[in-house]
Amino acid sequence: MYISGIGRTKFGVNKGPIHRMIYSAMCDVLNDSNKSINNIDAIIVSNFLGGPLQGQLHNNALIASLLPGINLPIYHNETACASGGAAFNQALHLLNKYENVMIVGFEKMNGTTKIPPIEALTMAEDFELGYEKGLIFPAAYALIAQMYLDKYSVNHEILEMISYNNHINANLNPNAQFYEKNVTMDMIKQAKMVSSPLTLFDCSPLSDGAVAVIISNNKVSDRDVKILSSELITDSISIVQRKDLTSFPATKIAARKAFEYAHIKPQDIDILEVHDCFTISELIALEDLGICAAGKAHELIKNEDIILKGSIPVNTDGGLKANGHPIGATGLAQIFEIVTQLRKEAGRRQVESCEIGVCQNIGGIGSTSVVSVLGV
Amino acid sequence: MYISGIGRTKFGVNKGPIHRMIYSAMCDVLNDSNKSINNIDAIIVSNFLGGPLQGQLHNNALIASLLPGINLPIYHNETACASGGAAFNQALHLLNKYENVMIVGFEKMNGTTKIPPIEALTMAEDFELGYEKGLIFPAAYALIAQMYLDKYSVNHEILEMISYNNHINANLNPNAQFYEKNVTMDMIKQAKMVSSPLTLFDCSPLSDGAVAVIISNNKVSDRDVKILSSELITDSISIVQRKDLTSFPATKIAARKAFEYAHIKPQDIDILEVHDCFTISELIALEDLGICAAGKAHELIKNEDIILKGSIPVNTDGGLKANGHPIGATGLAQIFEIVTQLRKEAGRRQVESCEIGVCQNIGGIGSTSVVSVLGV
Repeated sequence: MYISGIGRTKFGVNKGPIHRMIYSAMCDVLNDSNKSINNIDAIIVSNFLGGPLQGQLHNNALIASLLPGINLPIYHNETACASGGAAFNQALHLLNKYENVMIVGFEKMNGTTKIPPIEALTMAEDFELGYEKGLIFPAAYALIAQMYLDKYSVNHEILEMISYNNHINANLNPNAQFYEKNVTMDMIKQAKMVSSPLTLFDCSPLSDGAVAVIISNNKVSDRDVKILSSELITDSISIVQRKDLTSFPATKIAARKAFEYAHIKPQDIDILEVHDCFTISELIALEDLGICAAGKAHELIKNEDIILKGSIPVNTDGGLKANGHPIGATGLAQIFEIVTQLRKEAGRRQVESCEIGVCQNIGGIGSTSVVSVLGV
Repeated sequence: MYISGIGRTKFGVNKGPIHRMIYSAMCDVLNDSNKSINNIDAIIVSNFLGGPLQGQLHNNALIASLLPGINLPIYHNETACASGGAAFNQALHLLNKYENVMIVGFEKMNGTTKIPPIEALTMAEDFELGYEKGLIFPAAYALIAQMYLDKYSVNHEILEMISYNNHINANLNPNAQFYEKNVTMDMIKQAKMVSSPLTLFDCSPLSDGAVAVIISNNKVSDRDVKILSSELITDSISIVQRKDLTSFPATKIAARKAFEYAHIKPQDIDILEVHDCFTISELIALEDLGICAAGKAHELIKNEDIILKGSIPVNTDGGLKANGHPIGATGLAQIFEIVTQLRKEAGRRQVESCEIGVCQNIGGIGSTSVVSVLGV
């Protein structure tokens, strides 16, 4: 199985209709793969908040409207912030029946309905805790961050370094929401508190954007990237059911399975895209993926292992923090970046030597986790 | 591929939390299939309006919460009123990797948020036409009904007969929302107008309920039912893109493909579950599935071909009209009924001789259509 095409829009605030950005990503992926829509056998759409924020569900039919006269099987996957990774994972199963499958992820967080995005986001969490009792995402991840910092005697500076690294990378990514925004360490240190200990620069932004990927059974171009494995695992939606909040079992299990299937070890990974909805989740991801032992990720950060020229560059596109987080598209943006790097087409942010890349995309508070391994 | 288990709740108004009805259907399907949750390799959840009506998306993680310590791959499919059929269709692809896959569909139309169900339902349609300009579902299907009645010189009595037949069947189905409600032709004839020419008895009700199905690669019991094929096809979300509103191309294409794959002809079908969200869509389904020619379905109705003792019994469970329409569960309720009939476990509504059954589940205004063929 191969990734034979990638396409995307720039992330940020998009005042146009959702149709336009979806269409743009779809045209982009077809151009990139040198295929026409007539070569596509099926599509999976990934979107999280279209209902609450745009008053639009049934987005598979919305895609059909953009392709008049072409009656394809089109599915729609929603698994909160892991929707993109889950749609990619699901699409692999369709390759048993079809030759070419397109995955299109999109989100417009800047909505048109009366529901505020922060309220809509709680729908990814347990309704009672999140919506009724007010444990919204920044509060929940702040709780996790404080537990982690206390448990391993780490201070907030480590999280600042994560944020800074993501912004440094986004500065080199023309598609990123924070491209050439020149965020400095001073700006990060002076950021407003959101939910202690997390400041504004620990939190990913509200983003609009679309990403499309085409997967195929056969390799037809040298630019095609091999899909070595992809595993999705779920855990409880509510954190009250977890024994420990400083690690996400769903990621650990998905990673173990994905690495086993791909016949790789964590040490074999050259580049990594992890789900930094908040800086703390990047730290936890490094440990859950086995890049280092529990409680040791701060050493990787301090040693600059995760920077572009480090031993294991992480979130080379800027991550959710600085590339942006248009939820339904996020997991596919990670795929987009790994493919770009493995093809050696990442320009100023190109990692010198990379043959194996891994994406980790989570939904809710580590409730859904998708780990995918790509290689050349 | 086989259906190795079916489970469901009674449809109707359910004042309890969604968790309870989901759990109930899951226990029911495990009992029916004589399997434990440890035999299940993956789950697909089907739900349409959890976000707008319950403030709860990410329902795959909600299911994970009901299964503590069991970290399965769980996916969530949303394709409006075709969500159940689409989840079933998607699950078949997972059988390439897994032995047993559970599909759980649920909906609680009686919501807990401030959004009225009729407004939430427009999210299955084109936002601009449905939500902004007011072409809500009863109005859209009324338009279609009037066009159909005019085109083929049929009068509303035919639709009344469809409604009556569904109520007669539901009267024999203890799980149906209108079980033993003893609806008479007089009640149907005196029903209030909803959107001319459609009256209250032309419209399916608001329903809460859950249905679960287990599919497996291998047959282990004589009660297992064979899956001969399942095809999903999409069409434009907006009716302004259609040339003709008296037929749904997505159903025609899905049916042609599904029948081809299963090596059957429409004449081979013994029992049929079709998507009667409004009575007019049952009439159109009979033609789109090739049970009769375009414009001739009224003859089948008049001849009583679709009644329990007719040549091609339709909606033997009462259909969406009288069994109920808890949207995410509806497509799976159709599967539940066909399996029950093929197993000869339908009690007072058992069709005497049946070996091949077909389900047709649509989303929006014929925008998504899933046709599945089951057999013994």
